[in-house]
Amino acid sequence: MQISELAAASGVPITTLKFYLREGMLQRGRSTSPTRAEYGPEHLDRVRLINALTNMRGLPIAKVREILSIIDAPQGDPVEAMGSAIGALPPYDIAHESADYPHAEAVIKSLGFTFDPNFPATRHLESALEGLDHAGLEWNENILSRYRDALVPLAEAELAPMKSMDTQEAVIYAVLGTALYEPLILAIRRLAHRHLIESQTPTVDPEAPNARE
Amino acid sequence: MQISELAAASGVPITTLKFYLREGMLQRGRSTSPTRAEYGPEHLDRVRLINALTNMRGLPIAKVREILSIIDAPQGDPVEAMGSAIGALPPYDIAHESADYPHAEAVIKSLGFTFDPNFPATRHLESALEGLDHAGLEWNENILSRYRDALVPLAEAELAPMKSMDTQEAVIYAVLGTALYEPLILAIRRLAHRHLIESQTPTVDPEAPNARE
Repeated sequence: MQISELAAASGVPITTLKFYLREGMLQRGRSTSPTRAEYGPEHLDRVRLINALTNMRGLPIAKVREILSIIDAPQGDPVEAMGSAIGALPPYDIAHESADYPHAEAVIKSLGFTFDPNFPATRHLESALEGLDHAGLEWNENILSRYRDALVPLAEAELAPMKSMDTQEAVIYAVLGTALYEPLILAIRRLAHRHLIESQTPTVDPEAPNARE
Repeated sequence: MQISELAAASGVPITTLKFYLREGMLQRGRSTSPTRAEYGPEHLDRVRLINALTNMRGLPIAKVREILSIIDAPQGDPVEAMGSAIGALPPYDIAHESADYPHAEAVIKSLGFTFDPNFPATRHLESALEGLDHAGLEWNENILSRYRDALVPLAEAELAPMKSMDTQEAVIYAVLGTALYEPLILAIRRLAHRHLIESQTPTVDPEAPNARE
């Protein structure tokens, strides 16, 4: 197909496709004349991938490029590739003054995971635990095991399709899946809270004094 | 205690405390002289609450004020109060062209929850489902039940402490808990992914051709 057909098939304007070509994010098509190039289904897949990445909330174009270059690296340890690709995802604005993550280290070890201070989620966990501390919310072993018990089986189910994928497919799936199921998880949790609060609370008479009085 | 002692106990600078007083977010202390006021433990609790809210990523001061005014409303349906307070939390930048949430409505009904187009998580869910569609990731009934089965028991455990709280305490707990356990959930999920990928993948010889070749 020609670039105009690639634009129509992907829903991405030609000017944007030309930007992807110039930036090296999208490979040039097979030249059929000095001014024409032919694009195939692999180009359409690539445009859809770039589109999914550029549409992610908070993912700047520099990080899109970084993730694409990890996906394109033909060699390498798949675990490391997936770690780097997921590490390029937002949030980035979680500051932490030192390279020490004392709370996260204790929690990660108690969960039976490997502690790696260079994996960004370690910093995210430290910051989450500090946020709970500052607000006076608990995170003892009981509470943490509740999150582990819910999330580890979920993570296993999420990763199951990767068994039949090659490294490149697995890295793409890991990046898209990590980022795009996160908002689903948060939305379903908030909806579950509301559902449970509604179904547990007896209907309140608005004229009655509330529980505080 | 005097305002300087309140600053020391809370770790919040006096200038910030004076800002909270001017903005009506913090109640004035009991006047003991024309230039002095006495603050009690209820003021310290309030400063800690304001602090927890203002430290939340992406929560602007206008929304902090909105949440505080919901917390301070002495009357009202607790379910509605919690819904409004949670509805004031980020993310806000999820645009949706229409007031129709066809995918979210179908999913919410299939999960057995009540569909309410005005609850912000409904819009978040619609946007999450659209994101999955655009990236070609699946969200069929099997996949959704996996999230429900993990998240509903978790939500139940999270809400359990609210049974012994009055409305005001429950609204505070709902707002802080919703916002502050979210980063914990996302961090633990990413750590679980990495842990599972590492433990499932046989060690790769870096000299060997990878799975793609």
